[in-house]
Amino acid sequence: MNSFGRLLRIGIFGESHGNGVGITLDGVPAGISLKFADFKDDLGRRRAGAKGTTPRKEADLPKLLTGIFNDRTTGAPLTILFENKNVRSKDYEKLREMPRPGHADFVASKKFGGFEDYRGGGHFSARLTTGIVAAGVVAKKLIHPVIIEAKLIEAGGNPDIDAAIDKAMEEQDSIGGIIECRATGLPVGLGEPFFDSMESTLAHMIFSIPAVKGIEFGSGFKAARMKGSEHNDNILSMDGKTETNHAGGINGGISNGNPLVFRIAIKPTSSISLEQETLNIRTGKVEKLKVEGRHDLCVALRAPVIVEAATALVLADLMLLEQQVERINV
Amino acid sequence: MNSFGRLLRIGIFGESHGNGVGITLDGVPAGISLKFADFKDDLGRRRAGAKGTTPRKEADLPKLLTGIFNDRTTGAPLTILFENKNVRSKDYEKLREMPRPGHADFVASKKFGGFEDYRGGGHFSARLTTGIVAAGVVAKKLIHPVIIEAKLIEAGGNPDIDAAIDKAMEEQDSIGGIIECRATGLPVGLGEPFFDSMESTLAHMIFSIPAVKGIEFGSGFKAARMKGSEHNDNILSMDGKTETNHAGGINGGISNGNPLVFRIAIKPTSSISLEQETLNIRTGKVEKLKVEGRHDLCVALRAPVIVEAATALVLADLMLLEQQVERINV
Amino acid sequence: MNSFGRLLRIGIFGESHGNGVGITLDGVPAGISLKFADFKDDLGRRRAGAKGTTPRKEADLPKLLTGIFNDRTTGAPLTILFENKNVRSKDYEKLREMPRPGHADFVASKKFGGFEDYRGGGHFSARLTTGIVAAGVVAKKLIHPVIIEAKLIEAGGNPDIDAAIDKAMEEQDSIGGIIECRATGLPVGLGEPFFDSMESTLAHMIFSIPAVKGIEFGSGFKAARMKGSEHNDNILSMDGKTETNHAGGINGGISNGNPLVFRIAIKPTSSISLEQETLNIRTGKVEKLKVEGRHDLCVALRAPVIVEAATALVLADLMLLEQQVERINV
Amino acid sequence: MNSFGRLLRIGIFGESHGNGVGITLDGVPAGISLKFADFKDDLGRRRAGAKGTTPRKEADLPKLLTGIFNDRTTGAPLTILFENKNVRSKDYEKLREMPRPGHADFVASKKFGGFEDYRGGGHFSARLTTGIVAAGVVAKKLIHPVIIEAKLIEAGGNPDIDAAIDKAMEEQDSIGGIIECRATGLPVGLGEPFFDSMESTLAHMIFSIPAVKGIEFGSGFKAARMKGSEHNDNILSMDGKTETNHAGGINGGISNGNPLVFRIAIKPTSSISLEQETLNIRTGKVEKLKVEGRHDLCVALRAPVIVEAATALVLADLMLLEQQVERINV
Repeated sequence: MNSFGRLLRIGIFGESHGNGVGITLDGVPAGISLKFADFKDDLGRRRAGAKGTTPRKEADLPKLLTGIFNDRTTGAPLTILFENKNVRSKDYEKLREMPRPGHADFVASKKFGGFEDYRGGGHFSARLTTGIVAAGVVAKKLIHPVIIEAKLIEAGGNPDIDAAIDKAMEEQDSIGGIIECRATGLPVGLGEPFFDSMESTLAHMIFSIPAVKGIEFGSGFKAARMKGSEHNDNILSMDGKTETNHAGGINGGISNGNPLVFRIAIKPTSSISLEQETLNIRTGKVEKLKVEGRHDLCVALRAPVIVEAATALVLADLMLLEQQVERINV
Repeated sequence: MNSFGRLLRIGIFGESHGNGVGITLDGVPAGISLKFADFKDDLGRRRAGAKGTTPRKEADLPKLLTGIFNDRTTGAPLTILFENKNVRSKDYEKLREMPRPGHADFVASKKFGGFEDYRGGGHFSARLTTGIVAAGVVAKKLIHPVIIEAKLIEAGGNPDIDAAIDKAMEEQDSIGGIIECRATGLPVGLGEPFFDSMESTLAHMIFSIPAVKGIEFGSGFKAARMKGSEHNDNILSMDGKTETNHAGGINGGISNGNPLVFRIAIKPTSSISLEQETLNIRTGKVEKLKVEGRHDLCVALRAPVIVEAATALVLADLMLLEQQVERINV
Repeated sequence: MNSFGRLLRIGIFGESHGNGVGITLDGVPAGISLKFADFKDDLGRRRAGAKGTTPRKEADLPKLLTGIFNDRTTGAPLTILFENKNVRSKDYEKLREMPRPGHADFVASKKFGGFEDYRGGGHFSARLTTGIVAAGVVAKKLIHPVIIEAKLIEAGGNPDIDAAIDKAMEEQDSIGGIIECRATGLPVGLGEPFFDSMESTLAHMIFSIPAVKGIEFGSGFKAARMKGSEHNDNILSMDGKTETNHAGGINGGISNGNPLVFRIAIKPTSSISLEQETLNIRTGKVEKLKVEGRHDLCVALRAPVIVEAATALVLADLMLLEQQVERINV
Repeated sequence: MNSFGRLLRIGIFGESHGNGVGITLDGVPAGISLKFADFKDDLGRRRAGAKGTTPRKEADLPKLLTGIFNDRTTGAPLTILFENKNVRSKDYEKLREMPRPGHADFVASKKFGGFEDYRGGGHFSARLTTGIVAAGVVAKKLIHPVIIEAKLIEAGGNPDIDAAIDKAMEEQDSIGGIIECRATGLPVGLGEPFFDSMESTLAHMIFSIPAVKGIEFGSGFKAARMKGSEHNDNILSMDGKTETNHAGGINGGISNGNPLVFRIAIKPTSSISLEQETLNIRTGKVEKLKVEGRHDLCVALRAPVIVEAATALVLADLMLLEQQVERINV
C-alpha cells in the first residue's frame, strides 16, 4: 500500500536500479504555478555531493509527466518521474546470498518470495525519497504562508556535525543523527481527535522515511519526566499563543496556533565499510561480510529536506481538510 | 475521521459525559469465541481505583450490541457500548470560559465553533479508550500466539513508580511516564515499504492515545548516537533471529522475526490541583484557574493496557493483510 | 467493510433479530440543528404499515447516542441506534437447512462459515436500512437547498401501483418496481473524473440497498439506442442549463447544473407465500419449501425514502469535498 | 481522487495530448509472470483501426516502468506508461470558447477554474482507458481460472452491429450500444454485505469508464417487472448452482457460484460531424458548432475489453480480500 493522504494523496513507485523512481500526487488544486525550476533548491539539498554522502551522483532532474499545463497544475494527478542513470548493479548481485545487517534484504526476500528487485535495495531504497522531496515542493506551495524548517541538530551524538563526520570517515563507520523540524504560521484547528491527530498523521508519514526510528513532539520524552505544573502551557491570548511550548503546538491532536515542533531520530547508515558478520542464507552459516557499493556515511545529512517535504504533505492534507490552503500562485 | 485500519477497522464514538462511549470493529473474522467475561481482565487493568488514578469510577461493563451470535463473532461489525453512569458535569460547566492549559478545550472550541460537547473533555476524553481496550481484547485473540506486553518502566523520571506517585500526591501535582511495549512471536514480513511500515502504522495508532508525545522503536533516540557497527543487528539464523535487537524487530518497515520493542512517552496529566494561570476567553485576560473535577494524577498508570490494545489492533490488521491470523477459537 | 464515504462517512451495524441496528455518521460538521422529531417523517415513510408491506411493525424510534449536544451536532461521530423489539426468531430457525431462494442465506453461510446470525437475514436484513434513512435525514440538512425526491413509478411492470399490489396479494406472489430519483439545485462541479464520478459513487451507494439490480442515469439504457445528435444536450446558458437532459445532469462524471435524474430497478421480494423448491443442505436433495415469517410483498414500496437517503449521503460527501455544504441551521 | 480498490489498487494519470497516460497498480502479489508481449492482445482489441473507430492511431506500446524484475512482478507498485505520439492539439484549441455538447468541457472548466488541460478532453479522455486495459491484463492473471468475456450485443438499438455502423457513417451521426459481460468460475463468497457488495464495487468501477450510463445485473430492469415466483433462482446443488440465473450470480451482494452476468449501456459518442448548437461562453450566446478532430463513431465498439479489464480489477481485489487469488504463473 504505497500511498498516503486523504485529500492530497501521494503514491510512490520505483526502484533504485530500475528505470527510475517517482510519485503521483493526487488532489492538488488546479491553478498552482509549477515549473521545472521550482524543484531545483529542494532536490539540490537532497542530492549527494557533500562530505559524508554517497559517491553515487544522479542528476535528479524531475520529468513532469502529467497534471501540468502551461506551467500550472490542472487538478488532475501530477506524476513526476526521475530516471535512473548512474546505476552499478553488479555491486549488489553478489550480496544476494548474504542479507546485509540493518537492511531490508532479509525481510524483503521473505515477504516477496525472492521476487523483489534486490539491486540497491530496490523499492526499499532511500532513492525513492527523491519523489517525496518533489511532492514536498508542491505541498510547500499549498501551505503558504506556513514555513517549515528542518535541520540536523546532532550527528553521532555530537552537535558539531562536521567533526562527527570526520571522525566517522576516519573510523570507516557510519553515524546517525537527530533532526528538528519546526513549522510556523499554522492556523488553530488542524488534525482530528483520535486516529487522525496531527501527531498520528505526521508520525505515520515521517516513519515512512527510511532510517527513522523515533519521533517526539514538543518536550517529547522529556515531558515524561516533567510535572504537570511545569509542562502545561498557559494560554496567553485569543489566538492561542502560549507562554511555553512544551506541547509542540498540538493539544488533543489538534494544532493550537503555536509553532509545531518535533524531533526525529535517524539511525546510522546500515552500510558500512567495516567487516561484519551475518548469515549466508545459502549455506545457513554465519560468515564474514564486507558491504561494497556506494553509500552515505550519515543519511541524516540529506534527510532534513525529506522531513520538510513529508511534513508539508501532511500539513497540506490537513489544511485541505479544513479548507485553509492558500492559492496565492493563481 | 474517527476510524483506522485496512482490513480490521476500528471506529470510535462517544463522549465523556454523554450517553456513553464505544467502538465498532469491522472486519473481525467469523467464528471467534467472544464472551462478556473475556473483557474483564483488560478492562479491569484500565479502570480507575489504584493510587494515583481518578476517583471517578465507572463499572465499564461492555454491552456487546452487534456482531455476536451464540458467543461467537459473526463476521458482521462488532459494536461495543459502554454507558456512562457516574457523571458529574457541573464540574465542567464553569470551565467553559477558561480553557484548561494542556487540554483540548481551546482547540476544540475553535475547531468545532463552540458546538463541541465540552463536558469532561467530551469526545476528546481518555474515557474513549475504554472502547480501544475492548477492541484490543478481540484483536489479541486474532493474533494468537503473538504475545504483547506493555508496562510502565518509569514515572516522573523515576523507575520506583510507587515513590513517584506518593511524591506527586504530596505536591498536588501530576507526573508523566514511559511505557515499554514488547510483542513476541511475530512472523517475518508484516508491514509494507514506505507508508504502511510497521513503525508508521503503529505510531499512527499509538499517537491517537491521549497524552502520548513520543515513540521510539528499538534503540530509538539512542540509535541516533550509535555507530553503524554498533547498531547493526547481525542475522544468526534462517528464521531471522539477530544477535542484538537495536532495530526493535523491524527492518525497512517490516517485521524481522525478532521481538517488536518500542517505548512511548506519556506527558503528565494536564489537570492538576495547583492553581494555574490561563486566558479567560470571555474577558480576554489571563486569570487564575483552579481545575476541579476528578482526575488521574498519572495517566501513564492506566495506559499500558491501552497501548497493548492499540498494538494488537495494528498487528491483527497487518496479519490479516498477510493472512497469518490464527483461528484457534473456532 | 461496512462503511462508505470520504469526508462524510457512514458505518452500518446490527442484525434483524439481535439487539438492534444502527449507524455511525462521521464527518458531520458541528452546529447542525438535530432533534428527535427531525427523523419522524422519513422514518415514517420507511416503516411498514401500508398495504403490501410486512406485518412486522417496529416503532423505529432513533436513539441519538453520541455526537449531539444541546440539540446540535458537535462534529464528533453521530451514532444512532434502533433497538429491535418485535422479534419472532423461531420463524427462521427451521429455515437453517434450507437456504431460501433469492436470499443471502446460502452465500452467507458459505462466506461466514455458518457463524452468521441467520435470524431474519441477520446483518443482510433490509431492517438495516433504517439506519441509512436516519443518516439521510442528517445528510439532507447538509445539502440544503438541494432537493431530492424519489418515487415509485412502476410496480410489477405497471404504473398503476395500487392495482399491481392487489393482484400480487391475490396471487400470493411478490412484485418488483422501478424508482425514479431526482435532485434539483445541485451546483456544477460535483464528482471527479474516473473512479469518483457521480455515477460511480451514487451507484456504489445505491447498490448497497438490498434488492437493487439496476441503475441508469438520464436516458440510461435508452441512450444506447439513440444517435449522438439526439442524445447530446445543447448548453443554453452560462450556468450550464441544457435544452434536454439526456445526460441526467452529469457529464464526464461531474454534475452539470441540471437536475440529477436516475432510475433503479428493484427485484421482487424473495420471500413469497407460494411453495418453492430448493436445496436442503443437510440432505443434499432438492425439496419443497414454504417460507413463513412476515414479509413485504413489494419492497419497492418502502424503498424511495431509502434511495433519497442514500443519494443525500453521496451528494453531501461530494459537496463537502467541494466545500459547498450549507450551514443554514447554525 | 484517481484511484480505486482495497488491496489491488489502481491509480490513473495522464492526458490525451500531454506526455502520455498510464497507471500505477499497487498490491500485485510478487512473482506473477509479466512480459511486454502479454499486453498485445487486449491492447489490440482496444486500439482504433476498425470501421467506426477514430482515425487517430497510437502504437499503444506499454512501458513497464517499475515493479517488474526479470519478467516477474516484484510486489512493488507496477507503473505502466503509454507515451502520446500522434497528437494534433490545434483541433481543440479553437473549441475553447464553445464547450462541446455531451462532453466534459463545460464542467471541467467550471470545476478546475479554466486550468484544466482541455486538449482532446485532457484527463477526461477515453485515451486513459489504455491504462485500465493494461491493468486488466495483470488482473486477469490474478483471477485465473476465472474467465471474463464482454461483448457488444447491440449497437444503435440493433443486434446487427455492422449494419448499424454503416448506417451511422452514412448519416454522419454516432451511435451507442449495449455490452454484456459474463464471468465464469467464480467462487462463492466474494463481496460484502452493504457498501462493498459485488454490485456496488463493480458498478463503481464500470461507471468510471467514459460514456457508460447504465448497468444492470442478471435480469436487471426486467426483474422489476417479474414476480418473485419467476425471479427466484432455485438452488440445485451444494456448490450453489441454480436452475435459473436471474440474480446474475449475486445474492445479498455476494457471489453465489453461478456466472456473473451484467449489461451496460453506452451512450452514443458525443463528438459528431453534424452541426450542433451550443453556448459560446465568450459571447454568452447560443451559436452553431461543428466538432472537428478525430473521433469514434461508436465508442461501444472498443469498450468490451475495457469492461473486461475493469471487471477483472474488481474481481481480483475481491478475491485478494478473500485470499482466493491463484498464483499459477509462479
